[in-house]
Amino acid sequence: MNFNMKEAIELLERTPQTLECFLSGLTDGWLQCNEGEGTWNVSEVIEHLIDAEKNNWIPRLEIILQEGESKPFPPFDRNSHLNQRSESSIEQKLLEFKTIRALNITKLKVLIEAELQLELAGSHPEFGLVKVSELLSTWVVHDLTHIAQIVRVMAERYREDVGPWKEYLGILKK
Amino acid sequence: MNFNMKEAIELLERTPQTLECFLSGLTDGWLQCNEGEGTWNVSEVIEHLIDAEKNNWIPRLEIILQEGESKPFPPFDRNSHLNQRSESSIEQKLLEFKTIRALNITKLKVLIEAELQLELAGSHPEFGLVKVSELLSTWVVHDLTHIAQIVRVMAERYREDVGPWKEYLGILKK
Repeated sequence: MNFNMKEAIELLERTPQTLECFLSGLTDGWLQCNEGEGTWNVSEVIEHLIDAEKNNWIPRLEIILQEGESKPFPPFDRNSHLNQRSESSIEQKLLEFKTIRALNITKLKVLIEAELQLELAGSHPEFGLVKVSELLSTWVVHDLTHIAQIVRVMAERYREDVGPWKEYLGILKK
Repeated sequence: MNFNMKEAIELLERTPQTLECFLSGLTDGWLQCNEGEGTWNVSEVIEHLIDAEKNNWIPRLEIILQEGESKPFPPFDRNSHLNQRSESSIEQKLLEFKTIRALNITKLKVLIEAELQLELAGSHPEFGLVKVSELLSTWVVHDLTHIAQIVRVMAERYREDVGPWKEYLGILKK
């Protein structure tokens, strides 16, 4: 297992300010573009990240620690943010993400006091038994997958504009 | 064409500080991991970005503006940074990238004074005729492709650790 708490937290605490550096103040051209019908724009990805902070990682960790394997997690709806149309600016969304993430990292540090707890298991509605270490590893990789999505969505906008260089740009391969 | 100078510069000027936010102070576990033999770690990606600032974007733009289609660009060796083993820290590399990028954006603003120049063409050693707008679009998408590479390399480290969630994490699909 490569997972360890200290290194995982290093990434979890960097994601919000990284996205703030990257996205604050960008024109709508970058923030509103997507990869076609049914795909998310950058702003919707941030809404999803906020949603997961509220309803996924820490709530599920608490269920494992309180209930063990006996009580399955409530399902997490990956599209729920699309039903709560938000009018707030990207800067407000990034601030909300940063705030709730900081709070959740504080909770994480309180909840996980010992290495042994990483082996505790809960019950995923679809996968069955899952371990705390798997949930926390997924939290980290979930950040990474959505950073990758954000840059991929933005790159798509210049797909034709790069001309023959398309061949060299891995991000446009799909 | 979606490309426009103002929006392109918005991204070009954000990349260095975004990577600084994300990578400064990380443990070697994150900075030294790669995707297997012959692949780059995070630190090597930053070296390559510095290399491209020195030898690719602005030098090629200057050749187009000075020589037009008559003189092919010198080829850019995407692996040259691997032959110049550097002992500097990630923070030093990020600072070097930030400094040379800021200088290059200043040069870009001086070199491109009019929209019309975007249509000028140069001669790529492999592709033949390429336009200034294609070169500059590629500069932007090249940033995005390497941000995507960085997060993909890091995610790889937890491929096994996420357990059954692998199925939901697009970044691990390959």
